[in-house]
Amino acid sequence: VRAAARTGAYTGQTSGLAGSHLQANVVILPSEFAFEFLLFCQRNPKPCPVIEVLEPGVVEPLRSAPGADIRTDVPRYRVFRDGVLVDEPTDLRAHWREDLVTFLLGCSFTFERALLRVGIPLPHVGSDRTVAMYRTSLRCAPAGRLRGPLVVSMRWVAPGLVARAVEVTSRYEAVHGAPVHVGGPAALGIADLGRPDYGDAWEQPDGALPVFWACGVTPQAAAVESRPPLMITHAPGHMLVTDLLDLDVARP
Amino acid sequence: VRAAARTGAYTGQTSGLAGSHLQANVVILPSEFAFEFLLFCQRNPKPCPVIEVLEPGVVEPLRSAPGADIRTDVPRYRVFRDGVLVDEPTDLRAHWREDLVTFLLGCSFTFERALLRVGIPLPHVGSDRTVAMYRTSLRCAPAGRLRGPLVVSMRWVAPGLVARAVEVTSRYEAVHGAPVHVGGPAALGIADLGRPDYGDAWEQPDGALPVFWACGVTPQAAAVESRPPLMITHAPGHMLVTDLLDLDVARP
Repeated sequence: VRAAARTGAYTGQTSGLAGSHLQANVVILPSEFAFEFLLFCQRNPKPCPVIEVLEPGVVEPLRSAPGADIRTDVPRYRVFRDGVLVDEPTDLRAHWREDLVTFLLGCSFTFERALLRVGIPLPHVGSDRTVAMYRTSLRCAPAGRLRGPLVVSMRWVAPGLVARAVEVTSRYEAVHGAPVHVGGPAALGIADLGRPDYGDAWEQPDGALPVFWACGVTPQAAAVESRPPLMITHAPGHMLVTDLLDLDVARP
Repeated sequence: VRAAARTGAYTGQTSGLAGSHLQANVVILPSEFAFEFLLFCQRNPKPCPVIEVLEPGVVEPLRSAPGADIRTDVPRYRVFRDGVLVDEPTDLRAHWREDLVTFLLGCSFTFERALLRVGIPLPHVGSDRTVAMYRTSLRCAPAGRLRGPLVVSMRWVAPGLVARAVEVTSRYEAVHGAPVHVGGPAALGIADLGRPDYGDAWEQPDGALPVFWACGVTPQAAAVESRPPLMITHAPGHMLVTDLLDLDVARP
């Protein structure tokens, strides 16, 4: 997947790709924001579970994806300047600077195989669509100049499988872990599940409950609200595939 | 305990004090080291599980110990200048600067009640002695200018209780979690368990195995090796008692 993203042959979303490999959200900031963003992650571990931090100017994630180049190996990026989305390139080489610090955060796509295995259907897996994501009315704990709302991903789960979905995903803390909310979208400030802020809507299966997991798109909402001069991220659903495996980060 | 430390009425070690309250290691660094130290913690979560980070100049841990003052409420501190221990005061007010950033890291004293509850004797609890701690030959993952060895605490555990000790403490990831090593001190580079690098030696109960947990004194060993111009810590065994409870940080 990384090689195809690097050449530009693949620019799509990554849910269901690369089997058991851990997928990662990407956040790239100037080094003057590095401490504040790492502190934002420490204070908001559900949306921002840190997998790896690359030191300033470093483009190879030695711990989680040796050989990868963070400037080219994500299918699609987003570039925010002063909180405004100004570009969605498939390659970052024109934007790269030596003072940029890259953060990789765990993505819930990593535990989707485990959800499928216990019988929870996920129709977006294996399609060209991605999970539905919503900005909520819940606030993240701020850190320095960084603040913003919690963003969640949503999957429909049958009532008889909700507890199983919690049990299974609670083992995967490094990729958001257990859900933050089950049912009741109004309490999250979500007026219409049919209109996600990111990703694709997904029709409610008969009687299913919406189950919400904290989402690594949260830093993108923080960029819009906090307006750092520059923040570069993956495009929602278009993740970095790492060499780590889902079982590497699962609790025994 | 904090009030008594603040007035100077109590300057001793804190194992076994304050019942079920989470105890914390303290690391204070100039803000120019803040990102590197937080990254050191992210890369070494077993010895350095972050409970709270106070922003530059802030002395009150609002999240974990509201009302406390980090400059006075620890029974005893250590001041390292260029890697050299230069002072062991009971009060930091003379050393305080507005650019200092405080990190609180979980301490294994927090799970000692749980170990006692499952029948593992801990003779130092309730005495004026503290747990034995050792610098090992294992290296922490470096971060920027910070590097050093892993420090461990050791408790003797009867063979029939070793698995229980692992199970119990693995629930407490925020205070070092499961052991890093069972038996075999030579593999950690520890030549003589009777001569700990910090704390007090503890005679081997008949047939017991030494069980080693990652220890929050690790940053003090990193100070000695990395020589930042200033690092202030608690004195080993002399922790900050927080308002958090052991069950607040235990996995369900």
